[in-house]
Amino acid sequence: MPYVNIRVTDEGVTPEQKAALIRGVTDLLVDVLDKNPATTHVVIDEVPVDNWGVAGLTFEEYLKAH
Amino acid sequence: MPYVNIRVTDEGVTPEQKAALIRGVTDLLVDVLDKNPATTHVVIDEVPVDNWGVAGLTFEEYLKAH
Amino acid sequence: MPYVNIRVTDEGVTPEQKAALIRGVTDLLVDVLDKNPATTHVVIDEVPVDNWGVAGLTFEEYLKAH
Amino acid sequence: MPYVNIRVTDEGVTPEQKAALIRGVTDLLVDVLDKNPATTHVVIDEVPVDNWGVAGLTFEEYLKAH
Amino acid sequence: MPYVNIRVTDEGVTPEQKAALIRGVTDLLVDVLDKNPATTHVVIDEVPVDNWGVAGLTFEEYLKAH
Amino acid sequence: MPYVNIRVTDEGVTPEQKAALIRGVTDLLVDVLDKNPATTHVVIDEVPVDNWGVAGLTFEEYLKAH
Repeated sequence: MPYVNIRVTDEGVTPEQKAALIRGVTDLLVDVLDKNPATTHVVIDEVPVDNWGVAGLTFEEYLKAH
Repeated sequence: MPYVNIRVTDEGVTPEQKAALIRGVTDLLVDVLDKNPATTHVVIDEVPVDNWGVAGLTFEEYLKAH
Repeated sequence: MPYVNIRVTDEGVTPEQKAALIRGVTDLLVDVLDKNPATTHVVIDEVPVDNWGVAGLTFEEYLKAH
Repeated sequence: MPYVNIRVTDEGVTPEQKAALIRGVTDLLVDVLDKNPATTHVVIDEVPVDNWGVAGLTFEEYLKAH
Repeated sequence: MPYVNIRVTDEGVTPEQKAALIRGVTDLLVDVLDKNPATTHVVIDEVPVDNWGVAGLTFEEYLKAH
Repeated sequence: MPYVNIRVTDEGVTPEQKAALIRGVTDLLVDVLDKNPATTHVVIDEVPVDNWGVAGLTFEEYLKAH
């Protein structure tokens, strides 16, 4: 009964990429933990870039600094 | 001090339905666990259908297959 | 495809109470949103009382003050 | 390796306020727990007011009643 | 800057399996979204079986019924 | 109505440190967003070190490599 929540910055993830993430994570849980895919849920959250911080900086400040 | 997070696919949940979910979950926590409603929070997340997967399929693929 | 996460302080919730929460939340989602119970997951997190704060106070300080 | 998720009602939080929250939470984790800011992530979720309930009421009903 | 939260029932996941999940999810995010692994965090939550419900049943009731 | 979830590796956070995190985050939300502390909840999750990964490595592998 896995539930997986993938949170990424909102930078134009395509429907094909979302489908690939869902398929890939589900396969991984089947392979590693022998989970039943029928009860495996994957939810992707796309977070606005202004709302994500790392190292005390907003995402944009962080990208400029690295 | 309960915090409840309800995540559903974004398919036109009305304000009345949201109010019913908030009231219903709060009543349940009062009834079952004798919680204080004043410190009971309920947050509803509406997830775009492209972003929810089950059984390794996107929501739309899953609906077609079932 | 709902996923519901109920977070409460860890104060001896019994298996019967957990089953009542799971059944109650699932029934609510069926009644209000016509969701399919087969794809409705409910996860209960019991949080140590030291780890929950409200009003800037730890749970125990808060109970003493109210 | 902290991950902090701040959930607030969506009422016009400015980019400057978001930056202040990210900086403030990161500084707090450095000060209190001596965490490495480079691996400290902060994610802010702005929740539509219709989707937040407290005391069995929607946010708007709650504001009217208090 | 992905953050991935994998929630599974607590049924004896080994350290090797946890490492495989962390590596697999990180590789997936690099492959599909070209994410930087250095800022990719994966957190696994092992949920007591009593605390997970599906189809209105506790995990154990669900396993008996299927 | 903020809800803040702080997730850190489980490495012996003391009750005093937890109280300091709760107080500090609540003060920050009052200062930056003028939130009401009475409806501000902070929940700290201590994650076993085996269950946290970054850069495709488990926490312990990561510490050795840096």
